[in-house]
Amino acid sequence: MEIKVLRNILEANEAIAAENRRQFDQHSVYVVNILASPGAGKTSLLERTLEALRGELAMAVIEGDIAGRLDAERIARHGVPVLQINTGGTCHLDANMIRRALSELSLEELDLLFIENVGNLVCPAEFVLGEDVKVTVWSVAEGDDKAEKYPRVFLESQALVINKTDLLGLTDFDLARAQRSALAVNPRLAIFTLSCRTGEGLAGWLNWLRAQVGGRRKADSRLR
Amino acid sequence: MEIKVLRNILEANEAIAAENRRQFDQHSVYVVNILASPGAGKTSLLERTLEALRGELAMAVIEGDIAGRLDAERIARHGVPVLQINTGGTCHLDANMIRRALSELSLEELDLLFIENVGNLVCPAEFVLGEDVKVTVWSVAEGDDKAEKYPRVFLESQALVINKTDLLGLTDFDLARAQRSALAVNPRLAIFTLSCRTGEGLAGWLNWLRAQVGGRRKADSRLR
Repeated sequence: MEIKVLRNILEANEAIAAENRRQFDQHSVYVVNILASPGAGKTSLLERTLEALRGELAMAVIEGDIAGRLDAERIARHGVPVLQINTGGTCHLDANMIRRALSELSLEELDLLFIENVGNLVCPAEFVLGEDVKVTVWSVAEGDDKAEKYPRVFLESQALVINKTDLLGLTDFDLARAQRSALAVNPRLAIFTLSCRTGEGLAGWLNWLRAQVGGRRKADSRLR
Repeated sequence: MEIKVLRNILEANEAIAAENRRQFDQHSVYVVNILASPGAGKTSLLERTLEALRGELAMAVIEGDIAGRLDAERIARHGVPVLQINTGGTCHLDANMIRRALSELSLEELDLLFIENVGNLVCPAEFVLGEDVKVTVWSVAEGDDKAEKYPRVFLESQALVINKTDLLGLTDFDLARAQRSALAVNPRLAIFTLSCRTGEGLAGWLNWLRAQVGGRRKADSRLR
């Protein structure tokens, strides 16, 4: 009974995600769903990325949080459209929350939409939103065992950002072990190691993102 | 429909938690349910605590994880009984998982049982296990906005451990703001600031724990 209900919920979610996907395709918007534990640096990564790609790509952000609008306020300072979704207790964003938010955005003006999910390394991995890619952010301060303990989010992601490398020498985080264990779960992961605090290592992430958005635009124009 | 099912699940969970509670009462075992984001330091806090209270209190640990037995292996080195529960994808422990684990423990020999929940700052707060107290661990590296963004877990907890204070000067964490915001959610929180890495600040936490266990023993002996 409980399992059947869960399956129904996930199937209904996938149907709505496919509708979101059609809207993104129609307007050639590349969509990144960002997942992480609380405090791994999702918002900081967004701030650094918006700063670096401003003037180059037209971007917007949807912020998902249980409560409050702290992250939306941080993002708004960077001069891009931002919407705050409050889930009111729910531990993840779902496709219907995104569908409702989309009516508030001018998709035809965007190249790149970021969706910052609720801070949770478990549940958001189960709910597709219509995104092109999922990106997981992993903080050095969390320890190097996270891919072994929370494999699903690593399996569902196309890219992994290992953040807070400025803390590497100050914690027991073994970078090689972390990378190895993440690739053991998902050998196709693109892995970036960087520090949003110092800016070190951001270039690799930004170039990957540029290539993703560019690749999508070309694919869309061929279809026309 | 969905909401009714969720309510049924929570009610069924509470009934089983009450049965667990009766078992703990019968054997005068004090039970601590430890909640946190992934990598906040739950296991490190347990290791430090087991080390300090060994010989003084008879302790055991139940480890909750999505997958693997890394944490149980760390705990086992401290010479206390430890059980690993793998939830296999579920984002929290529930009372029934604990009930099944209890048959593997000699409760009559224990003073103090720790339950380390799945790393998740959202869902575990909704599921009582039969514990005496919930303790939330919050890492300085996560940023000082967590009580505002994840209020429920702070509301459900009796104590808050702010961990990794050795990183205080190396991050933007404002300790006063963190404490203030946690107390705004739950004015009765006992707050301890410490570093499991350096050991600084552990005494306050240990003394609080001793007082809890001692208080419970006295309450039980009065009832007999």
